[in-house]
Amino acid sequence: MKTKIILLFLCSTLVVGANAQNNDSLMLRKIYDEALTNGQSYKNLEYLCKSIGGRLAGSPEAAKSVDFVKATMDKMGLDSVYLQPCMVPHWVRGAKEVGEIVDVNTSKHTSVSICALGGSISTVPEGITAKVVEVHSFDELAKLGRKFIEGRIVFYNRPMDPKHIETFKAYGGAVDQRYSGAMQAAKYGAVGVIVRSMTLTKDDYPHTGSMGYVDSLIKIPACAISTNGADYLSLAMQMSSGTKFFMKINSTTLADEPSFNVVGEIKGSEKPEKIIVVGGHLDSWDNGEGAHDDGAGVVQSIEVLRILKALNYKPKYTIRAVAFMNEENGLRGGKKYAELAKQNNETHIAAIESDAGGFSPRGMSMDCTLKQKQKVKQWQKLFLPYGVYDFDKNGGGADIGPLKEQGVALFELLPDSQRYFDLHHTANDTFDKINKRELELGGATLASFIYLICVNAL
Amino acid sequence: MKTKIILLFLCSTLVVGANAQNNDSLMLRKIYDEALTNGQSYKNLEYLCKSIGGRLAGSPEAAKSVDFVKATMDKMGLDSVYLQPCMVPHWVRGAKEVGEIVDVNTSKHTSVSICALGGSISTVPEGITAKVVEVHSFDELAKLGRKFIEGRIVFYNRPMDPKHIETFKAYGGAVDQRYSGAMQAAKYGAVGVIVRSMTLTKDDYPHTGSMGYVDSLIKIPACAISTNGADYLSLAMQMSSGTKFFMKINSTTLADEPSFNVVGEIKGSEKPEKIIVVGGHLDSWDNGEGAHDDGAGVVQSIEVLRILKALNYKPKYTIRAVAFMNEENGLRGGKKYAELAKQNNETHIAAIESDAGGFSPRGMSMDCTLKQKQKVKQWQKLFLPYGVYDFDKNGGGADIGPLKEQGVALFELLPDSQRYFDLHHTANDTFDKINKRELELGGATLASFIYLICVNAL
Repeated sequence: MKTKIILLFLCSTLVVGANAQNNDSLMLRKIYDEALTNGQSYKNLEYLCKSIGGRLAGSPEAAKSVDFVKATMDKMGLDSVYLQPCMVPHWVRGAKEVGEIVDVNTSKHTSVSICALGGSISTVPEGITAKVVEVHSFDELAKLGRKFIEGRIVFYNRPMDPKHIETFKAYGGAVDQRYSGAMQAAKYGAVGVIVRSMTLTKDDYPHTGSMGYVDSLIKIPACAISTNGADYLSLAMQMSSGTKFFMKINSTTLADEPSFNVVGEIKGSEKPEKIIVVGGHLDSWDNGEGAHDDGAGVVQSIEVLRILKALNYKPKYTIRAVAFMNEENGLRGGKKYAELAKQNNETHIAAIESDAGGFSPRGMSMDCTLKQKQKVKQWQKLFLPYGVYDFDKNGGGADIGPLKEQGVALFELLPDSQRYFDLHHTANDTFDKINKRELELGGATLASFIYLICVNAL
Repeated sequence: MKTKIILLFLCSTLVVGANAQNNDSLMLRKIYDEALTNGQSYKNLEYLCKSIGGRLAGSPEAAKSVDFVKATMDKMGLDSVYLQPCMVPHWVRGAKEVGEIVDVNTSKHTSVSICALGGSISTVPEGITAKVVEVHSFDELAKLGRKFIEGRIVFYNRPMDPKHIETFKAYGGAVDQRYSGAMQAAKYGAVGVIVRSMTLTKDDYPHTGSMGYVDSLIKIPACAISTNGADYLSLAMQMSSGTKFFMKINSTTLADEPSFNVVGEIKGSEKPEKIIVVGGHLDSWDNGEGAHDDGAGVVQSIEVLRILKALNYKPKYTIRAVAFMNEENGLRGGKKYAELAKQNNETHIAAIESDAGGFSPRGMSMDCTLKQKQKVKQWQKLFLPYGVYDFDKNGGGADIGPLKEQGVALFELLPDSQRYFDLHHTANDTFDKINKRELELGGATLASFIYLICVNAL
């Protein structure tokens, strides 16, 4: 008798389990169908890119994009839409940035594509000309020392390693040159810095990006050079010991500006005090349209709320979409969000970011407990029909990073990464590089992931 | 003692197994590294696309591409490079194809983007004008019957279904309209056919592609209309019952032309009589550059041989790369290849095709025995570090299809399919749509797959 009961219990548990899995599978199908047939993310991104354009923190375009995202959310019939004020840095690139290879023997000037790194000081108005020292690491720089560096322009020319399959790893292996290059070179008396663009492709686009200074050292101007330009400069230096470089940049750092994160919410039906947040960053570099970085993440996050509402799904927990401000050169929005969450005693179950481009989704990276990871991995079979298979990578995202110390489980959408660094931080990160379906599949993946957290907990 | 021996035997088997797996893993790493650091496929594809361009069978460009591939292979130090002659159809698109929506009430002509389907007869030189009947299926056409069809132009306007995640399935669900539309409409006395382009995107590019006629029915001209054009035509018909369509196409079918498959081989070191073939098709439609369809597959197949030679790998079996001719409108090359294989008593262990675009590889589809499928699935863990995970789909490829009746195991590279039908058979299938790394990852995946067949058999 007892055995029978146990068997019956086991059977019914299995049936309930199978039904739950089946319901989840049906719901995911509905979510992806909704995204692919009625998706609004592509249209919203077109507006952000083509009607507003590049949206660097503190700029008029960033302010316009805040208005646009708020207005878009206001029209969606959400339970709550609001702004989170935060002060942001305000760096402005000057017009007419010039980079030229100068052969002092022939007086020939050859123009190459450069742009100031974000945050760089200006050169003197007439520009600077100096001999160039090419290095591939900070060790090499230190070995050369003040004797060979003083009065010169340091040219960091270590390429990203193409052998990495995940291009973000290749980026991680080279970006120290961009972020710390000026600080390191200033130690030895350099007068300027040129950094090979952070990309795996060969072209004429310089890639900007954030850089740092320390107060204890003199600040020197720093620019990125396109990969074609970098190869040409390196060759010119091999051919002629008289090679100098002329650089003129005229950027300014103004006083901090008030700006905002934009937040939209669907209130939880059972446990509204528990929050799942999904977001991307609304600011972008000034030189492109911020299409993949990270307009895509913003419109996908808004799309999550639209999909859940369109399917008339009432989530148990509160679902919050956030367009974060100032990820690129300060992370003030991300920090402010975490600060307010703490101050208001909010409980976040999970934070999910999309900031790796609007390409075909392949998985979700995780920064959470082993138990949570194991739970999420069980969802893989539900995602496989949608080409989403990779739940083995570690990592959250920059904007949600400050929530980590509050013990929040962090996740980031993993799109195909091959094309990302072709466009990243360049004038080429434009709307035409977006594929509508890839963008929509990413939004559907985020919505599905949030749905699964709601019904299965973490 | 016996137990000890058995244990020792088991242990050594396990060690050998683990070592083999480890060797395979190291070899795959070398293959992908070689592809990503010294790859030649991108450069070769640039030549095919930019110096030659569209390569429809029978055209001077197709002949030039045969010369180019042969010359490229000749320079590689292969064991054998040769041509396989075959006769191919020779259809030529005329200049100045015109499609116009005509409102007979206002006499207004509105131009829309059309192009003749491949193989279509010409209209009369001055073009035809007729009332339009819009249908979404052959059933609907049959229900309307001769009474409503005779003397009219049939407009097939069933879109590809965006809910399919694999876009090839969406294509499969709509392409009957293009291939059989003219035959079906001719049954009821139609004078021409317009087919909604086979794509999931909305734009102004008409998508050509092959169509058929039967000798028992009158041949009527058929064109593709862009999706924007199709939506506009459909709306115009709803707005005005006096809507007609003017179409003028002036294509010609000339006598068959001699052409070639191009074949390059590395002879097997142990079993040269056993062959693994990998290929793509060299011909393309005339309106674009045949970049993704299927210049990509050709240069990836050549790259397989280059990689194996660069790594000084001596395959046990003969590895053969083939640039097939005339996949698009006849499959004469693929049929000739299989015919010659049979005639020469060749033994093919496996045939692998790349004809789904040069995008990021995700897996390999299979058309082989269950036992072979199970064997291949065991290789998944070796491919996972390269983002190649999907060994669950069925399917070989068109050019290798005729080998099936000889019992050959067939495989096809599965790239990400989201962007493919944006470009397929249009003027937009150009070299700039290729990402170098994605192309190279595909070639490395093919080389790795062939290596694994060599060392593990099938």
